[in-house]
Amino acid sequence: MNRDQALAIVKEQLTEHRYVHTIGVMETAIELADRYGGDLKKAETAAIFHDYAKFRSKEEMKQIITEQKMAPDLLIHSPELWHAPVGAYLVKKEAGIEDAEILDAIRYHTSGRENMTLLDKIIYVADYIEPGRIFPGAEEVRKIAETDLNQALMASMKNTILFLLKKNQPIYPQTLQSYNYLVFEEKGGTSY
Amino acid sequence: MNRDQALAIVKEQLTEHRYVHTIGVMETAIELADRYGGDLKKAETAAIFHDYAKFRSKEEMKQIITEQKMAPDLLIHSPELWHAPVGAYLVKKEAGIEDAEILDAIRYHTSGRENMTLLDKIIYVADYIEPGRIFPGAEEVRKIAETDLNQALMASMKNTILFLLKKNQPIYPQTLQSYNYLVFEEKGGTSY
Repeated sequence: MNRDQALAIVKEQLTEHRYVHTIGVMETAIELADRYGGDLKKAETAAIFHDYAKFRSKEEMKQIITEQKMAPDLLIHSPELWHAPVGAYLVKKEAGIEDAEILDAIRYHTSGRENMTLLDKIIYVADYIEPGRIFPGAEEVRKIAETDLNQALMASMKNTILFLLKKNQPIYPQTLQSYNYLVFEEKGGTSY
Repeated sequence: MNRDQALAIVKEQLTEHRYVHTIGVMETAIELADRYGGDLKKAETAAIFHDYAKFRSKEEMKQIITEQKMAPDLLIHSPELWHAPVGAYLVKKEAGIEDAEILDAIRYHTSGRENMTLLDKIIYVADYIEPGRIFPGAEEVRKIAETDLNQALMASMKNTILFLLKKNQPIYPQTLQSYNYLVFEEKGGTSY
């Protein structure tokens, strides 16, 4: 599937605003893949499809999470988290994307996971810093991403956790796990 | 065991500074128990013994955590967390405290847990706000604790998580779980 075909498929699934965001993520993901030695084509495809399920109804997403036996604690946490694993499922089913690495990058683009692949990191960070992102902290992470993808990833996760704490929202345990993993990695394992 | 006997036991285990802190926690815990309808005597005992294991060596604490099959993820997280579960174990073994509620309040006084008991909450908050605590945020939590123990607990956990994030330290998953539980409870369950 070439870029135009892929974009045509997701355009039908998204609002105009979200489509523009997707283009931004795509361009940023390709830049990051180029900078950090990732697969450019996989970065492009994962980015194009990362928000594929964003506008599915809560009911449909709930049903898929339940039927496909995805992490049950998703359902007590924010629906903002749901479109990522549900997207990985639907992108395979409806758009015929079979590449496991691409599907994982879509699946983990909001929560992260322990031991993220380079492609996971590229999509997570690109989603956070694409040019349309103007929330506090995005510019700082953009700057860090010029030289250190892991630090950019850690900073974006930290910002997300801080944002949720300030809004008195619960924090999805897997988000914390992903963050802790990076902190431990940064420390070079533990010294306790 | 009366108060003087209990204090004499812990005095031998603690530095002067930590003993003064313990007296502060004891007085604060009794106040909170009185204010929120808790058991004054249990609050006193749990407070007196809460830091019993604080100055045991890492080696001894590691051994107890392993042999007693305590949560294995403790060992990859900060030793600051270890004295609480190890303390509950040693207080029973060495000081003969058998009351399960008191032992739990000691066990969970740093991480918290889901669905904390009134005594758990009293000890956790008293430890955070006793008069010797002068770190940023303590005064705010002290104020909240005058009228709302749950809000005081949530604020102190949030401060702890923020503090760790700012110091680029990992966050113990059970700490997050305890915090999330309070947030969900506050929201009256989820509305997703």
